[in-house]
Amino acid sequence: MRLAHPLQPGSTIGILGGGQLGRMLALAAAQLGFKCHIYAPQGDNPAFDVAAAHTIAAYDDMTALKAFATACDVITYEFENVPGETAQVLEDGTALAPQAKALQISQDRALEKDFIKGLGIEVAPFAVISSLDDLEAAVQAIGTPSVLKTRRFGYDGKGQVKLTDAGECAAAWHAIDAQPAVLEGFIHFHKEVSVIAARGWDGEVASYELTENVHENHILSTSTVPAHVPGALVVEAQAIAEKIVTALGYVGVMGVEMFVGSGRLIVNEVAPRVHNSGHWTMDACFVSQFEQHIRAISGWPLGDTIRHSDVVMRNLLGHEAERWKHHGGLAGTALHLYGKAEARAGRKMGHINTLTPRQG
Amino acid sequence: MRLAHPLQPGSTIGILGGGQLGRMLALAAAQLGFKCHIYAPQGDNPAFDVAAAHTIAAYDDMTALKAFATACDVITYEFENVPGETAQVLEDGTALAPQAKALQISQDRALEKDFIKGLGIEVAPFAVISSLDDLEAAVQAIGTPSVLKTRRFGYDGKGQVKLTDAGECAAAWHAIDAQPAVLEGFIHFHKEVSVIAARGWDGEVASYELTENVHENHILSTSTVPAHVPGALVVEAQAIAEKIVTALGYVGVMGVEMFVGSGRLIVNEVAPRVHNSGHWTMDACFVSQFEQHIRAISGWPLGDTIRHSDVVMRNLLGHEAERWKHHGGLAGTALHLYGKAEARAGRKMGHINTLTPRQG
Repeated sequence: MRLAHPLQPGSTIGILGGGQLGRMLALAAAQLGFKCHIYAPQGDNPAFDVAAAHTIAAYDDMTALKAFATACDVITYEFENVPGETAQVLEDGTALAPQAKALQISQDRALEKDFIKGLGIEVAPFAVISSLDDLEAAVQAIGTPSVLKTRRFGYDGKGQVKLTDAGECAAAWHAIDAQPAVLEGFIHFHKEVSVIAARGWDGEVASYELTENVHENHILSTSTVPAHVPGALVVEAQAIAEKIVTALGYVGVMGVEMFVGSGRLIVNEVAPRVHNSGHWTMDACFVSQFEQHIRAISGWPLGDTIRHSDVVMRNLLGHEAERWKHHGGLAGTALHLYGKAEARAGRKMGHINTLTPRQG
Repeated sequence: MRLAHPLQPGSTIGILGGGQLGRMLALAAAQLGFKCHIYAPQGDNPAFDVAAAHTIAAYDDMTALKAFATACDVITYEFENVPGETAQVLEDGTALAPQAKALQISQDRALEKDFIKGLGIEVAPFAVISSLDDLEAAVQAIGTPSVLKTRRFGYDGKGQVKLTDAGECAAAWHAIDAQPAVLEGFIHFHKEVSVIAARGWDGEVASYELTENVHENHILSTSTVPAHVPGALVVEAQAIAEKIVTALGYVGVMGVEMFVGSGRLIVNEVAPRVHNSGHWTMDACFVSQFEQHIRAISGWPLGDTIRHSDVVMRNLLGHEAERWKHHGGLAGTALHLYGKAEARAGRKMGHINTLTPRQG
């Protein structure tokens, strides 16, 4: 259901998921006087430590979900793989933002690409793949190199296989367990960039400045703002992101990942949630992406997206976070640690924002 | 006891007091990956909503205090009127910062003024008052106007009576219930200012830029940075604050309130805790006073006190906070609401920081 009226401070915001994004959402909600209720299965849930209430239950526990919906004035989530039935139960019980429709589209690469392409926004050439025959035909049409990606449940490079030759079709199809997929033409890009956009219940839209991202092993390593791209591309990228959230009737913050290739912007994918490439806003802006999301879903006016400093965000993965004394002692640097119990290799344990006075 | 070693992320920080200062300390601690445990009596305790654990017990419940000390790796507090025995029990059980000694001095205006004067720092002329006879003699020596203040438990103008004539001694003495007091010569000041200083367990010291404060009805209304005073006074004020924390062997953040009169700085009082006049650091600096306090008491390197923006902090008292939609919609403005249940007149419900690019 829609939010009936802007939420008063003291209202309860429900968050599905107990990881670092839920935790930073809860911290931002607290700044505005809200209480948070976190819903997550048993596990390492650092968001519990900063919330007024939590529920430990599975994401398909319909009884627990209904009780959760009753206890919350609005519900949001920190991850896009929320099961459709779960989203529907929550949306039947209270306001859910972003809405179940946004989840459906972003959970399926084929629907997502069709939707974005339908807005006149460039995406990589792609074909929907349901069988090995489909894949072989698509490789003939799109060529190699190309990338076979499962339609659903991929993240951080999982569920993806690169094809460099038409003879690799059978092996690739086997590698993704013959799941429904898309084949994408490989983009020879110069840069990976992203925009964090927001839309409120009333249709108000705002976006942060374009971010330049560097991935290592398919995991975000750094985000740099300002990006080293022409100013016109920054404006165009923000317009694209705002067009997508508006066309979806979306409510909340969305991360829109793009490639810059041959001076053009090509949308790679969207995430219906706060996004790792927006963590720089926590220290370089007066209103962070987390506060912006809370404002948007609560029916509040969106915050000012102005940036007061230049910034490089760097993720601290696995054991890197153990050098907290080093990171904490750096001048002009803000340290964020997520309170996770165990530092596995590649696990996002924290990040640092290194700030310098804005140059322009 | 002293802190044995810097606290690892994941350690537990105990906070005595469940109000807005405890809440903002807990939010800052979470950013660094710490868990918080709040200790407060039954009541409206908004800090509970952002902490991993809480204890509801009286401040003189020795059994509960001992259990609290055992559960925490370091303990701090949000208010200076912590009973001496309470502080001692906590300090016997775990690391307490600021230390019990700092509480003793700051709880007693006579000890505090003696201590500061002993460092060669100017304070208002004063006399210690134990009887009406003392008061009458002191008024002869110091003159009028002057202010009679109870030695202990005064805040926001409570426990203070202004004398404009020597004939008012008996009435004033009665008005403060014949409590131990000091008589202070009235300072004809041009400005009220303050410095937020910090000292770590290893003696490292840092301070934020001088803040210019305006009070209304004895309650802080606005803090402005930069203050409109000569640059040399800014440097001198920071040196004074750093001298005080160093001489005390203090650990944590301290608020040092001063007057500027005839181009000189006169220390009014110190608060052994994070301070309302330091709330501007939450949005105009990369490291807030709350994070600085957590760093100091946890044995971490102190944070950079650099200021990236000019700022005016304004308290939202009582029903002012109900205009959250207005405040939340202002450009270049960060809104902080404390999650308190009831908006009584004069009660601190939140604050806004209005930010502009740094001019110099």
